[in-house]
Amino acid sequence: MSSQAIILFAHGARDPEWAAPFGIIQRQLQAARPDVQVELAFQDFMRPTLDEAVAQSAARGARRIVLVPLFMAQGGHLKQDLPLLVGKIREQHPQIELQVMPAIGDVPEILQAITDWVLRGAVA
Amino acid sequence: MSSQAIILFAHGARDPEWAAPFGIIQRQLQAARPDVQVELAFQDFMRPTLDEAVAQSAARGARRIVLVPLFMAQGGHLKQDLPLLVGKIREQHPQIELQVMPAIGDVPEILQAITDWVLRGAVA
Repeated sequence: MSSQAIILFAHGARDPEWAAPFGIIQRQLQAARPDVQVELAFQDFMRPTLDEAVAQSAARGARRIVLVPLFMAQGGHLKQDLPLLVGKIREQHPQIELQVMPAIGDVPEILQAITDWVLRGAVA
Repeated sequence: MSSQAIILFAHGARDPEWAAPFGIIQRQLQAARPDVQVELAFQDFMRPTLDEAVAQSAARGARRIVLVPLFMAQGGHLKQDLPLLVGKIREQHPQIELQVMPAIGDVPEILQAITDWVLRGAVA
């Protein structure tokens, strides 16, 4: 039982290998914070859905959930679909404090990490 | 005229704002390496296509192109579509040395940057 959860929310794909990077982030977070529930959730093709992951976290005692959209950029999925999903979660679980983080493409230090990696690897 | 080009290859979306993070990475790279052509290219919905970006870089004198797939994970687009696109580019531009970097979800330091950001922002 942990009162805090992180849900990593990704697009999903038909290919099971697609989820591997998200599993790595999940394990790194879990290793750093064994006291926090760290779960994956998917928009399409893969399970659990976001609804299912929230219900599971709540059943395990989460009172605060941080939702991390692991999308490179804000398209229809994040701009239209995510607010609807978040509204539904807040209705169904009014006791849970839900924090939604920005898309990773809106995080300057992650964009800088990508830039630095390209510069190291790409440029002769 | 620059003999070296970096092409940042992203999924694309109907929403023009979607491309903003990729434009930031492009400008950071261009600022760090004004001697290299840094271009965006898109799989769907947006222009230029990868073909168009390669043709433009070649017309501007590129003899070496580094292709950076700005996809979080390897799904059908990267596993099936990208090798076909790359094969076609190599046929059409045999004089160009083409290097393809991994998806960003396969880069440990970028996954670590995401993990660190979540830990800083998400966990009370």
